[in-house]
Amino acid sequence: MTAQKARVIIIGAGFGGLNAAQTLAGQAVDVLVIDRNNFHTFTPLLYQVATSGLDPSEVVYPVRQILQKASNIDFLMGEVVSIDHTAQQVQVRTRAGERTEPYDYLIIAAGSVTQYYGNEAIARNAFGLKDLKDAVVLRNHILSQFEQAAWTDDIDHKRALTTMVVVGGGPTGIETAGALHELYHYVLRHEYPEMNDLTPHVILVEASDRLLAAFPAPLRDSARQQLESLGVEIVLGSAVEHVDAGIIRLANGRVIPAHTVVWSTGVAGSPLGRMLDVPLALGGRVPVLDTLEVHGREHIYVVGDLAYLEDESGTPYPQVAQVAIQQGKRAAHNVLRRTENAAENAFQYRDLGIMATVGRSRAVAWLGNRVPLTGFIAWVVWLGLHLVWLIGFRNRASVLVGWIWNYLTYDRSVRIILENTTRHIPANLPETQ
Amino acid sequence: MTAQKARVIIIGAGFGGLNAAQTLAGQAVDVLVIDRNNFHTFTPLLYQVATSGLDPSEVVYPVRQILQKASNIDFLMGEVVSIDHTAQQVQVRTRAGERTEPYDYLIIAAGSVTQYYGNEAIARNAFGLKDLKDAVVLRNHILSQFEQAAWTDDIDHKRALTTMVVVGGGPTGIETAGALHELYHYVLRHEYPEMNDLTPHVILVEASDRLLAAFPAPLRDSARQQLESLGVEIVLGSAVEHVDAGIIRLANGRVIPAHTVVWSTGVAGSPLGRMLDVPLALGGRVPVLDTLEVHGREHIYVVGDLAYLEDESGTPYPQVAQVAIQQGKRAAHNVLRRTENAAENAFQYRDLGIMATVGRSRAVAWLGNRVPLTGFIAWVVWLGLHLVWLIGFRNRASVLVGWIWNYLTYDRSVRIILENTTRHIPANLPETQ
Repeated sequence: MTAQKARVIIIGAGFGGLNAAQTLAGQAVDVLVIDRNNFHTFTPLLYQVATSGLDPSEVVYPVRQILQKASNIDFLMGEVVSIDHTAQQVQVRTRAGERTEPYDYLIIAAGSVTQYYGNEAIARNAFGLKDLKDAVVLRNHILSQFEQAAWTDDIDHKRALTTMVVVGGGPTGIETAGALHELYHYVLRHEYPEMNDLTPHVILVEASDRLLAAFPAPLRDSARQQLESLGVEIVLGSAVEHVDAGIIRLANGRVIPAHTVVWSTGVAGSPLGRMLDVPLALGGRVPVLDTLEVHGREHIYVVGDLAYLEDESGTPYPQVAQVAIQQGKRAAHNVLRRTENAAENAFQYRDLGIMATVGRSRAVAWLGNRVPLTGFIAWVVWLGLHLVWLIGFRNRASVLVGWIWNYLTYDRSVRIILENTTRHIPANLPETQ
Repeated sequence: MTAQKARVIIIGAGFGGLNAAQTLAGQAVDVLVIDRNNFHTFTPLLYQVATSGLDPSEVVYPVRQILQKASNIDFLMGEVVSIDHTAQQVQVRTRAGERTEPYDYLIIAAGSVTQYYGNEAIARNAFGLKDLKDAVVLRNHILSQFEQAAWTDDIDHKRALTTMVVVGGGPTGIETAGALHELYHYVLRHEYPEMNDLTPHVILVEASDRLLAAFPAPLRDSARQQLESLGVEIVLGSAVEHVDAGIIRLANGRVIPAHTVVWSTGVAGSPLGRMLDVPLALGGRVPVLDTLEVHGREHIYVVGDLAYLEDESGTPYPQVAQVAIQQGKRAAHNVLRRTENAAENAFQYRDLGIMATVGRSRAVAWLGNRVPLTGFIAWVVWLGLHLVWLIGFRNRASVLVGWIWNYLTYDRSVRIILENTTRHIPANLPETQ
C-alpha cells in the first residue's frame, strides 16, 4: 500500500519559489508552481533592460523550460486571488476562468512591489523597476522623451525631457543611475544632433546622508567617487517631497524639471501577504518562525522578500535574492522533513557578500562581507558572478555575447519603442478592391 | 551665393524608405524620414518572432542608428495624418502634438497592411503578421493557448486550443506553418506533458490549387513534399468562408475547431495612399509612372508595396522587399536628378529570384529565376543570404549566435508572454507601514 503523496503549492516563480521547486524536484511530493507570468525574471539585471542594454528575453526564462525535467512538478499560469487556510486551498484566476487548487503545504514566494509609501502622486508619475513590464515601460518612456526632445525648440523643456532622476541610493538606484548616464553619454547623445547643446543630466537623490548604507565606509566613498567620475550628480540628505508630471520637488526646496523619475527607495511585501489574515510586520512583510512557517498558519511557509524574520542580532534579513534563494531551499527541505515526520531545521543565512555595479568597468563589492573590491576588479567579479548565476538556469550564450558586444562597441541596439502588445483590432479596414 | 537645398520628406522607414534615405545620404538635399516607430523592421523574419525563434529586437533596428552618419538626414517619429499636395506639406501627429512639415519632394514608402478583404470577422479573429506588434501579439496568443490547454480536461477543447491554421500558401504562409510546426513538435510538446495524447496539428489552407504560385512546378511540388514531411496538413483549393473565435469554416464545408488562425493571404496598400486623392489601383495601390512619380501629383513619388507599376509584360511588380529596395533607390536618384535639372530614369527591376524556407533544413529557392534549389542546400542559401542582408544594416552578431544555438539545441527561450507594456498605474497601493 502506498500512501498518497503530499501536494505542495508554490506561489511565485522568482528566486525563492524556483529554488523551493528545484529542491522538491524528484522527491516524493506532488508540486504545483503558480505564477502570473510564464517566465522567471532575473531581477538583478532589469535595469539593463530599462536602459536598452539587454533584450527582455535575455533576463527572463520560461518556467516550464526550467522545470521541464521534473515530472512531479506542474506549472499553472494565473493569479492567486485568495487563500483559504482552513480548507487548505488557493483560488487562482486564469485566462480560462477560476480554479480551486488544494494543498497539503503552501510555500508563498510572492516577492515584493515598489514601495511608494502610499503616495499616489509618486506612484502615478514615477517609474518603478520591479518586474519585466516595469523595465520595458521605462525603456519605452525614456526613448520617447528623447524623440520628443529632438523636436522641441524650447531649451528648458528640452532639458526637462532629457533629465533623469533616480531616487534611492541603494544598489538598484546606483546601477540604474550609472546605466542611464552611459546610455545618454555613449549612445543617445550621438544620435540626436539636436542635443549637442545639452550635457547629460542624471541625478541620484538619496534621503539619508549616504549611498549604499549596507556597505562599509571606504566602499561607500568609492561608489560615490566612481558615480561622480561618470558624471552623475549626487544629492544626499534630501527626501523627495513631491513628483508631478515633468517636475520633482525635494524636501530641501530644490525643484528639478525632469520627465523621468525612477523610484527605487525600497520595496513593500506583495499584497498577497494580506490574504493570510495575520498581523503584518513593517513594510507589509509576513512574520515567520525560524522554520519559515507563518506564525499561527500551520502548513503555510513564506520565503524571500515577503517574509519577515530577524537574525540573532535582531536585524531583519534583507530583501535580496540570496536570502530568497536560501529561504526557498530551506522551506522546501522543511516541508519534506514534515512529510517524513522528521524535525524541521531553522533557517541559517550564509551571507555571500554584497556588490553593486556603478557602470562600465566601475563597481564595488564586499565579498563574504570581508574582502572589499572597487573599480575594474570589482566590476569583473560582478560580471563573472552574474553571468555564472544567470547561465546556471538560462543556458544561453547570447547574453554573454550581447554583453561583450556592448562592452566593445557601446552598442545599444535594443532601444526600440514597442508598446501596446495586447491584441488590436484594425479599426479602419481597407475595402475590397 | 548658394541656392537653398531642396527638402525631401520620406514617409516610412521600411525597405523602400530606408534605401531612399541611404541614397540621399551626404547629397545636397535636406532629408526628413518619418515613421510611426523608432525602428526599421526586417519583415522577412517576423514569423520567427511569432514562433519564439528570435527576439523582437533581433529583427528590428533603431532608425537613428542606421542613419546616424548622415548629417543631412533627420528623423521624426510620428504618424502622418494628412498630405497637402498643393501646399506641399505633410501633417504629422507626434507625442508632443501635431507638426506641419513642408517638402519640395515627397517619397512615400508607407508599405502595406494585411488584406482582410473588408471581412470584419476575419480581421477580428485571425492574426495578421505584418509588423513587430503583430508578431509579438501572435507569440503571446499561441503561448497563452497552450497554457490554457494544459489545464483543460475536455480533449476536444484542448485540441482546438492547440490547433493552428495558416491561411495563404505564399512564402509567408509556408514559412509560418513550418515554424509553428517546429515550435510545437520540438519544444512545446516536451514541456506540456498534459499534451502527450495530442499530435501536433498545423494546417495550411490555400484557396487556389497550388502553393507558392510564383515558383516553377518542380519547386512547388518540392515545397509541398517538404511541408508534408514535416507533418503540416495541407488543404488546397478551398477558400476560407468564415473565422469565428475558436472555429474556422472553409468553403468546401469543412469546419476546423482552432483558436489560432494566421492570415497571410496577401496585403493591401497602406491606407495612407488614400491621402493622395488619386484613383487607386487593385489592392489599394497608388498608380505611378515608370519614374515612380504619382500620376497627376508632381513632386510625389511612391515606392514599394504601396506603388502600382506594371512591367513590360503588363504584370504588376510583386509586393516584395526587393522591389521596395530597388524602387526606393530609383525614386531617390530621380529626385536628385530633378534637383540637378537632369532627366529622370525609368525604374528597371533586377529580379534576384525568390525563395521560401519551409522549416529547419528545408527550403526552396529559384535563384535569378533560373537556378532551382531544394532541401538543405536551398536552406543554407536562404540562411546565408538573410544573414548577410540582415547584418548589412544591423551589425549585430547575436542573431547569428541565436540561430546557430537554436539549430543545435532547438532552444526557443524567447517564448515569454509579455503583454500590456503601456504604462500601468498601480491600483492598489500598499499602505505605509
